Amino acid sequence: MTSTAEFDHAISLTRAEESPVHHAELRDDWSIGEGIHGGLLMALAGRALADDLGETSGHRDPISVSAHFLSRSLPGSATVHTEALRRGRTVSSGMASIRQGDQECVRVVATFGDLSGKTTTNPSRVFSAPPSMPPPEKCVPTDMAPPELLKELPLLQRMDLRLSPDCVGWAVGAPSGQGTMEGWLRFPDGREPDPMMLLFAVDCLPPVSLNLGITGWAPTLELTTHIRGLPARGWLRLKHSTRLVDNGYMEEDAEVWDSAGRLVAQSRQLTRLGRPDS
Amino acid sequence: MTSTAEFDHAISLTRAEESPVHHAELRDDWSIGEGIHGGLLMALAGRALADDLGETSGHRDPISVSAHFLSRSLPGSATVHTEALRRGRTVSSGMASIRQGDQECVRVVATFGDLSGKTTTNPSRVFSAPPSMPPPEKCVPTDMAPPELLKELPLLQRMDLRLSPDCVGWAVGAPSGQGTMEGWLRFPDGREPDPMMLLFAVDCLPPVSLNLGITGWAPTLELTTHIRGLPARGWLRLKHSTRLVDNGYMEEDAEVWDSAGRLVAQSRQLTRLGRPDS
Repeated sequence: MTSTAEFDHAISLTRAEESPVHHAELRDDWSIGEGIHGGLLMALAGRALADDLGETSGHRDPISVSAHFLSRSLPGSATVHTEALRRGRTVSSGMASIRQGDQECVRVVATFGDLSGKTTTNPSRVFSAPPSMPPPEKCVPTDMAPPELLKELPLLQRMDLRLSPDCVGWAVGAPSGQGTMEGWLRFPDGREPDPMMLLFAVDCLPPVSLNLGITGWAPTLELTTHIRGLPARGWLRLKHSTRLVDNGYMEEDAEVWDSAGRLVAQSRQLTRLGRPDS
Repeated sequence: MTSTAEFDHAISLTRAEESPVHHAELRDDWSIGEGIHGGLLMALAGRALADDLGETSGHRDPISVSAHFLSRSLPGSATVHTEALRRGRTVSSGMASIRQGDQECVRVVATFGDLSGKTTTNPSRVFSAPPSMPPPEKCVPTDMAPPELLKELPLLQRMDLRLSPDCVGWAVGAPSGQGTMEGWLRFPDGREPDPMMLLFAVDCLPPVSLNLGITGWAPTLELTTHIRGLPARGWLRLKHSTRLVDNGYMEEDAEVWDSAGRLVAQSRQLTRLGRPDS
């Protein structure tokens, strides 16, 4: 059964039988000013690798996905080239390359497995906590942004993203000064979370740098995501934080907590700062 | 001038002119029971890419290096295959693959730049602190380990690694229960820190899982390192922490602070747990 959800449509791929080259159509809907959203590209590469590795090994769930962003992806046709690197008993690894024309946009190396089973009897240890923020109805929907901004950021209408009231001061010239950003996320069409959505979710909040009074884009150089479990249905809670902004670069960590209170995804990215958006 | 330091010798490469294939000899000295140390392999791939990308673009400093570990690397000959993915104005990216025989051991994607210059006037923001521990002479040198362990872990004699007294209880059956591990690091032959050493340094401490009472190896599935600055001379301070141990996997973050008190490297790895070492 083919999903009719917007997100699944956006990461759908076609390919000729036996071909390692997938074809995708990157829709303007998922762009954020500079180009196609990085999280969507991660999910697109994840989709291609899940198909390829899953077919032969049963390893359909991304465990760790590392993406280096080489050049901007623009709306239009793209190809995703994949290569299986290793097929193992419990995990398999592969490479994916997203290209447009003769330009490589993203290079991905990833390890996949099966998240549906219990693999150990060791107890869980969690040294973090879900973001503490008001319920979604008391947070600030990003589609409340001014119309001219929504036009530049069509992505904002692809998601129901609600920022913690503590994290929106930057929008009115009063950044919090804290190195964190928090919010709720779900898809407006009711499409429920799964590992592919988590690959997208880790890159949905505005950059933490805005809360530090650093304006402008924060283009991602590299983004690695670990999927730690299959998410429950319902809202996701997102928490981003940085430990270091220095010399034009910012490291940004994301945590995604599901509605059952479980930390289901972690990511870290390195972004470049200092390119004003005017 | 060729360095005579042990570490530089261990990551030295040879290649025929114009060839993308580098040759390396992985020495037993740098193994840790299961195979060659992951941090050394990161530095080896980093060395190869620094040579290749640096030659044409001047981008000799690793900025972000993502490695997926596919199979164990054993002492003996290895080849490092590299491919330039993109040469840019401020950064360049490349791929490296470490192979032994017909087996791929490590696949790396990395972005390089030049860390010697100031690229922005934005002030630094640090939301972390160096590990607070006694000076090196009051910490516990890992070469105090029992002779039979030193024999299994020759790596311990390649480095002067001193663990915080708060982080050694596990060695006598009394793990701290804290999700952290801290220590000092330098090379015994006086070789000073640089970005290549930082690629190695992020993976030198024993796994945090030992402090949580989880025994056994913690083989790395994936390790990404960000080099955030050129380190000062002298001791490095290492701090590892985990936010989540769950379902047989542990995420482990490393910070490396230099003697001038600057956070010069950050890394995150995903390891597998639950494989007892007996």
